[in-house]
Amino acid sequence: MLSLNQASEIVDAALGKARELGLRPLTVTVLDPGGHPIVVKREDDAGILRPQIAHAKAWGCLGTGHGGAAGARHATRDPAFFSALAAMSEGRVASSRGGVLVRDAEGALLGAVGVSGDRPENDETVAVAGVEKAGLVADAG
Amino acid sequence: MLSLNQASEIVDAALGKARELGLRPLTVTVLDPGGHPIVVKREDDAGILRPQIAHAKAWGCLGTGHGGAAGARHATRDPAFFSALAAMSEGRVASSRGGVLVRDAEGALLGAVGVSGDRPENDETVAVAGVEKAGLVADAG
Amino acid sequence: MLSLNQASEIVDAALGKARELGLRPLTVTVLDPGGHPIVVKREDDAGILRPQIAHAKAWGCLGTGHGGAAGARHATRDPAFFSALAAMSEGRVASSRGGVLVRDAEGALLGAVGVSGDRPENDETVAVAGVEKAGLVADAG
Amino acid sequence: MLSLNQASEIVDAALGKARELGLRPLTVTVLDPGGHPIVVKREDDAGILRPQIAHAKAWGCLGTGHGGAAGARHATRDPAFFSALAAMSEGRVASSRGGVLVRDAEGALLGAVGVSGDRPENDETVAVAGVEKAGLVADAG
Repeated sequence: MLSLNQASEIVDAALGKARELGLRPLTVTVLDPGGHPIVVKREDDAGILRPQIAHAKAWGCLGTGHGGAAGARHATRDPAFFSALAAMSEGRVASSRGGVLVRDAEGALLGAVGVSGDRPENDETVAVAGVEKAGLVADAG
Repeated sequence: MLSLNQASEIVDAALGKARELGLRPLTVTVLDPGGHPIVVKREDDAGILRPQIAHAKAWGCLGTGHGGAAGARHATRDPAFFSALAAMSEGRVASSRGGVLVRDAEGALLGAVGVSGDRPENDETVAVAGVEKAGLVADAG
Repeated sequence: MLSLNQASEIVDAALGKARELGLRPLTVTVLDPGGHPIVVKREDDAGILRPQIAHAKAWGCLGTGHGGAAGARHATRDPAFFSALAAMSEGRVASSRGGVLVRDAEGALLGAVGVSGDRPENDETVAVAGVEKAGLVADAG
Repeated sequence: MLSLNQASEIVDAALGKARELGLRPLTVTVLDPGGHPIVVKREDDAGILRPQIAHAKAWGCLGTGHGGAAGARHATRDPAFFSALAAMSEGRVASSRGGVLVRDAEGALLGAVGVSGDRPENDETVAVAGVEKAGLVADAG
């Protein structure tokens, strides 16, 4: 499982990448493998639902065992199942790019990262950059 | 943040516009930037869910940082994500015209207005009229 | 059932009384007999949960058919039933002073008023003053 | 409203104080005035509900406009109303020490801090230390 130090490093590196790219205000969340927050940071002027969206992107990855890009493809093919997932998880799942699983070099699951605030592909870029800066492996699906 | 006096002026001006246009019975809600009500008024003969719909139109704008017209376009393109938003916000988001962000002349966010009861474009007209009557800027998306 | 004009008069008169008495920032809500809002106003600097508290005081009166002072006495005698009421109403009931039923001269039920923000007895004083200013009868229990 | 930089400084100073005092693993949350997270950090080995408890301590302060110590005294005197608050806020309120309002030197409300994981008085000590380190005023009630 990710330590607080590792999770903080991921979040700060992700936000550093976002500022470098000039993205819109973001929220970045790192969850442990049980889906519980370790670190959340919301930038100034980000919308008030962004923490839940970032949480749901990361939680959705842990919920299904797939990165958010895989979830987004699945949701497009099977929207009814996706609606059922939203309901059965009580709103904890968003199957969107910007959610990635965090693994170590051997592939062991350490947690998940969710990013929300810009376009889904940009959110994903930032999530991956944060994880890699911490010397870990991002599984975006 | 909007004062009670400003929010009351927005609501009364919006309802005045609605009566001038002969619209159906409306509900108008003004929220602070955190999504909490300052003023709600529901006209005689309006449906009993209208307060929640007006609230969700305004809240959805604050949740994502976009006016309701932008939200409505997004929902049409990506209904699965829209369903997820509804679930993860516990029903607090309606991405529909009739929700507008309220800004000052410098663009600072002061709150949001939601209107429900007539066609979405008419609801939006009334919300914009109310905000402008109070000397503020309506961001409809 | 109360009209929007009557409900607005009650709220504005209640807030006028509160300012005259120098009370803390208040929220005042008027519900129709079905428990749905007609008017809500929250004064500057009032806490963000005050709209729900005012709503629950008014809704609780309608839920049981008794004014809030009767509800408060009941809750003191039977806290377990009160907890059950909170759960079964999904948080819509607060049995506290500051909630009053609104009746006409013949005793017919027209709606309910909830006030929150100061001490319960002061909230009730303001609710009663608002109803009486509108020429109606406040049933505080 | 607190910036992300200010909120980060509060959280890091609070956790620094906790390590200095040798407290149990903590979670620290900083909310904006609308009750939405800016920063959350959960230390290694903290329980999985701690983020919600810290959130509810901070949210409860914003909900009623009082610091957590005042809320805790109120809850002891009036447990039935406290149960109703929990229900009507859908579990967003914990009236406990460890929640403090954050104000500027003029008394304006900037947000709230919640700390959970050790004894309530220690949680409060840490919350106050974090706020003061950031040059702001902690209102513990």
